[in-house]
Amino acid sequence: MSKDGADERDLAAYCEEVARRAKRASAQLGTLLGQVKNDWLKRSAAALREGTATILQANARDLAAAPGFGLTDAETDRLRLTPARIEAIASALSEIAGLPDPVGEVIESAVRPNGLEVSRVRVPLGVVFFIYESRPNVTADAAAICVKSGNAVILRGGKEAAHSSAAIVAILRETAAAAGVPTDAIQLVDTPDRAAVGHFLKLHRWIDVAIPRGGESLIRRVAAEATMPVIKHFDGNCHVYVDQSADLESALRITINAKCQRFGVCNAAESLLVHQAIAAEFLPGVAAALAANQPPVELRGDEATRGILPTARIATEDDYFKEYLGPVIAVKVVAGLDEAIDHINHYGSHHTDAIVTRCLLAARQFTARVDSAAVMVNASTRFNDGGELGLGAEIGISTDKFHARGPCGLRELTSYKFIVIGDGHVRS
Amino acid sequence: MSKDGADERDLAAYCEEVARRAKRASAQLGTLLGQVKNDWLKRSAAALREGTATILQANARDLAAAPGFGLTDAETDRLRLTPARIEAIASALSEIAGLPDPVGEVIESAVRPNGLEVSRVRVPLGVVFFIYESRPNVTADAAAICVKSGNAVILRGGKEAAHSSAAIVAILRETAAAAGVPTDAIQLVDTPDRAAVGHFLKLHRWIDVAIPRGGESLIRRVAAEATMPVIKHFDGNCHVYVDQSADLESALRITINAKCQRFGVCNAAESLLVHQAIAAEFLPGVAAALAANQPPVELRGDEATRGILPTARIATEDDYFKEYLGPVIAVKVVAGLDEAIDHINHYGSHHTDAIVTRCLLAARQFTARVDSAAVMVNASTRFNDGGELGLGAEIGISTDKFHARGPCGLRELTSYKFIVIGDGHVRS
Repeated sequence: MSKDGADERDLAAYCEEVARRAKRASAQLGTLLGQVKNDWLKRSAAALREGTATILQANARDLAAAPGFGLTDAETDRLRLTPARIEAIASALSEIAGLPDPVGEVIESAVRPNGLEVSRVRVPLGVVFFIYESRPNVTADAAAICVKSGNAVILRGGKEAAHSSAAIVAILRETAAAAGVPTDAIQLVDTPDRAAVGHFLKLHRWIDVAIPRGGESLIRRVAAEATMPVIKHFDGNCHVYVDQSADLESALRITINAKCQRFGVCNAAESLLVHQAIAAEFLPGVAAALAANQPPVELRGDEATRGILPTARIATEDDYFKEYLGPVIAVKVVAGLDEAIDHINHYGSHHTDAIVTRCLLAARQFTARVDSAAVMVNASTRFNDGGELGLGAEIGISTDKFHARGPCGLRELTSYKFIVIGDGHVRS
Repeated sequence: MSKDGADERDLAAYCEEVARRAKRASAQLGTLLGQVKNDWLKRSAAALREGTATILQANARDLAAAPGFGLTDAETDRLRLTPARIEAIASALSEIAGLPDPVGEVIESAVRPNGLEVSRVRVPLGVVFFIYESRPNVTADAAAICVKSGNAVILRGGKEAAHSSAAIVAILRETAAAAGVPTDAIQLVDTPDRAAVGHFLKLHRWIDVAIPRGGESLIRRVAAEATMPVIKHFDGNCHVYVDQSADLESALRITINAKCQRFGVCNAAESLLVHQAIAAEFLPGVAAALAANQPPVELRGDEATRGILPTARIATEDDYFKEYLGPVIAVKVVAGLDEAIDHINHYGSHHTDAIVTRCLLAARQFTARVDSAAVMVNASTRFNDGGELGLGAEIGISTDKFHARGPCGLRELTSYKFIVIGDGHVRS
């Protein structure tokens, strides 16, 4: 037997063992008292603060290795931990401790005409396989959200953050043991071998859901290989549509916020649609504000836009499909609401789209007909976020329609069971 | 180019055209008024009644062809339509018309501290690809449930029922046109080519969910090939556990109902677990009732059971994993509640399991720790059914934990969107 064959078998056995342990832990987690989980979260917050020096040492090793992985400056910055960032991680855990426990929630309950009491009660999904890239803060966040919702988690972080993540997980497992949470509820995959992901994706017997968080190619790979459900988290091609009746000052503020507040996020606007009746009045101000932004944002427009802004570069059809995740915006002048809605449903990615309007009819049409996870009226697309929408914490923003859509918080990591209580009922 | 290659391309093009039409129809369906959908359902019920003679003629052609397909008598009987069965199909549609419309339901709504109004509103999934076997009544039922929940449906019925299903779908499309429902909301795949299913399962761009309903091999094939989410509907290895404190009369009634009321259904009991303290008192009555049933039910037991019922055949480990779907039951005497729960979670299929008990603690432990879609207390497993649990109608019983678990009614065929209303809100 070749060494590679033996290694491959070892890796498969390792992955299966991790998954089995996770499943065993999840059976205990499902009925763990909420106060035990919260105690673990609070102990973990304290232990992360106390462990700052250790975590920073581990992080220094990752930072030293970063050039070897070819990380850009921005990527290296995302990898970097500081006392303030560790404090933020700890605070996030305390906040999750304060959120309501989703497990055991009675979603609905009724007494049937024959006296049977039927309840639909929230239960954990089971085991989450979470695959993410190099930001070490995500390690603690994901573990906290999974365990609070009663799920065991298998964490597969980026190799660039391996030491930082290992230091954080060591602390989380130590506090788990102290608090009475099964330590195997939080496991970090400790091999950099890329083949491990493929092995885990076959283990639907023990893993209930896979959540990839990262670039499009990672998500496509996981979706293609997974034998269990996947919560997908693609980027967003988000739109702002400024209606004829919009308050133009508000429309400008929302457009600039949606495009410029952060470029590299999935809920940033990539396209601006403007009603023809107000385009000539509205667009020059937009162009000026985009040009004045730091960094300046390039505006690409259709012919009608260039009639108003002659120096704008032409927007190709490709531009309307594009998620720039950077300082560019595509602009189109539309005949009205119908064209705006059709454009968004055709070119958009069904993520987050906003209308600015004072017209109730337009707002109702837009929210009913735009087929997106979040539809905003007179608000920036940037609000599509678990914290902003009131979910408390999120493990990602789903671009699926199945199971969970939009921000995935604690509830979105649960299933339910029917509990049916009778007095000797039989079916006739 | 070989003829086969050309046929294959034609088939692929046909499937894509069907899927595109369905997607177009679904965009209209999503905002169709509830009264239009209900009007379609009522017109359809009337038209099916009026069309009885036509449907029976089509059904006669299927029945004549049945021996050629090698159908058993039971299968032929399921295929057979009668005026009474057509009346039952029509009544089911009228009942679905009377159910609340799930689309537009506000699942939750809150005002955030910054004044943003955030609502989670129910929307259709989009396009359902429904693959089922030979019962023609399922054709009308599935179409009704899908359209009422705002989804377009692509129906792929068994070839054995092709004429019956075509006659029913022709009526449903005619009434759709009359009622203002897009006719492409209801499409029947009109080729018997098995390869069509494979083509549809690749079309995740237009199809949002695949629902196979039939034997295990069909479901496994669909789950393996599908590029879109699948609601799986495996059989159930369901248990009745009779606790030490059970009312034994009630326990006997529930056991016999769960096992004998219908053998071939997923919520029939396949195993009986009996607390050792009451086994000697309880089991002889069970054996007698099973023997007296028409047809008699064979009892297979472990050594402890055979100590009480010496003529019982031994139950192997395999028996405890088995879904007989027939007149056999596996019996095991257990030391207590913990062993019962562990047995069910290990050998069962997480479908439906019941406890008979008078002890509140036992009931609470059982419902919390048994990891099944439906957990019954003092009620027959046969109640795990959309109608019985109050969902009104069902397209199947999901054995998944993701998205929908247990009976899938109208709501289970929906997703949601976030609707967020502000007054010029931007994120800081």
